[in-house]
Amino acid sequence: MKLANIRGRAALVLGDEIADVETVSGGRFGPEIMSLYDDWAAFAAFAATVSAGSAPLVEAGLGNPVPAPRQVFAIGLNYRSHAEESGMGVPTVPATFTKFPACLAGPFDDVHIPGDTVDWEVELVAVIGARADRVDEADAWANVAGVTVGQDISDRTLQFSAGSQFSLGKSWRGFGPLGPWVVSVDELADPDDLALSCAVNGEKMQDARTSDLIFSVPRLIAELSAVVPLLPGDVIFTGTPAGVGAVRQPPRFLQPGDVLESWIEGIGTIRNRCV
Amino acid sequence: MKLANIRGRAALVLGDEIADVETVSGGRFGPEIMSLYDDWAAFAAFAATVSAGSAPLVEAGLGNPVPAPRQVFAIGLNYRSHAEESGMGVPTVPATFTKFPACLAGPFDDVHIPGDTVDWEVELVAVIGARADRVDEADAWANVAGVTVGQDISDRTLQFSAGSQFSLGKSWRGFGPLGPWVVSVDELADPDDLALSCAVNGEKMQDARTSDLIFSVPRLIAELSAVVPLLPGDVIFTGTPAGVGAVRQPPRFLQPGDVLESWIEGIGTIRNRCV
Repeated sequence: MKLANIRGRAALVLGDEIADVETVSGGRFGPEIMSLYDDWAAFAAFAATVSAGSAPLVEAGLGNPVPAPRQVFAIGLNYRSHAEESGMGVPTVPATFTKFPACLAGPFDDVHIPGDTVDWEVELVAVIGARADRVDEADAWANVAGVTVGQDISDRTLQFSAGSQFSLGKSWRGFGPLGPWVVSVDELADPDDLALSCAVNGEKMQDARTSDLIFSVPRLIAELSAVVPLLPGDVIFTGTPAGVGAVRQPPRFLQPGDVLESWIEGIGTIRNRCV
Repeated sequence: MKLANIRGRAALVLGDEIADVETVSGGRFGPEIMSLYDDWAAFAAFAATVSAGSAPLVEAGLGNPVPAPRQVFAIGLNYRSHAEESGMGVPTVPATFTKFPACLAGPFDDVHIPGDTVDWEVELVAVIGARADRVDEADAWANVAGVTVGQDISDRTLQFSAGSQFSLGKSWRGFGPLGPWVVSVDELADPDDLALSCAVNGEKMQDARTSDLIFSVPRLIAELSAVVPLLPGDVIFTGTPAGVGAVRQPPRFLQPGDVLESWIEGIGTIRNRCV
């Protein structure tokens, strides 16, 4: 299943068509998308019965498919290649911060650039579909509704001031585009091994596989849910691979006019214009 | 106004009595407490007309008065005395992390102690009552519904592993007791100068005034809302003064059986037993 937010209404994406969830379910589910994560098993069973859309899919109408998570977990330094390029070392416990939820944005929204050290970070984002409280790694994919593409856009100056707490510098309004939709885990041949990449103005900057994650999605769920329960609709930004702008020679940062494209295998591409 | 959560229902505290909000408003407000922050001006105007309660106030019934904020901002190193004792320096930008919302707890809830380096941090907590987007410091108290007492309980080991990102080590389930109620700003003679203290087993450990905050409540709202909008019902843990256990000689940490009492002038006391 591919679940999208079309102008504030939950919709299933079926090829190049969409089916409005409230309409096709006769009012049983939707239109509000966050409620679907609260009742994910029932919704997924229903969604499997829908085989055709009723309107064309139009990219411009797509909004954030997880617009109001109760908790946003974000993981730093979670690819060995990026931990090494950053010079910050490989953590033994997930380096966990947040992107404050009001910074989340739609998959094709413009990104306002507030300074001259704004950087890109393509990331696989997992969306929780069942409350996870002290979950074993071996069972953890069952707590995931699906995955989506995220950009952990980062103001490097603010990230490393503010007591070196990353959260604020990664939370400027619009710094968390997500989408273009949530792909349910069953649609992926191997959810632990997805190619992902990021390009700026068509030039590929990041290119890796999620199988290189130090803490995999199920391991993150085990580690995080040992501390605090994960709730339906929560998201986990799982970290970015090598190739960010700050460590290039010379450094390269996002500027107004740049177009940022972030792609993950089996999910799709989000595209954000810098303004 | 003092607004409390009594077994999941919003209630006004009037002396030693309470008035159930839904009942006394004829269903116009409540019973769910978070919805009141979304409509704070109207609710505050109504609450001012209620002068008597109808049932006795019983401490055991009090729950978290802000149980489901959309965003939890927490500030580190925000009293000069604590920044100095910690050896981490005085930040020039608020050192902003989060306590993941599922760790929040009631004012008299037990705290499970997950290790041998769990520390106390009494803090003034501000609750947002009107969306704050690029608010000037001079106007910022108008965006606050009220204030409450918080404990930013901290697992020092986990806080300083995890890439030195504070959030996870401060988010063990139950590590964010709040209460006993939210006191509206108009009830406080000077909301920028409140005495606060923390005691363990009756021994005073922290004793300071909020006038010593490096970034005051209105300054924090200005700094944070410059980056990302603050939403009604969001909370800001404003930081803790000197006197935490980790820097004592010898260090002193919370153990099962300890009783932690946190007090702020004009608000009240929360009390948490360690188990």
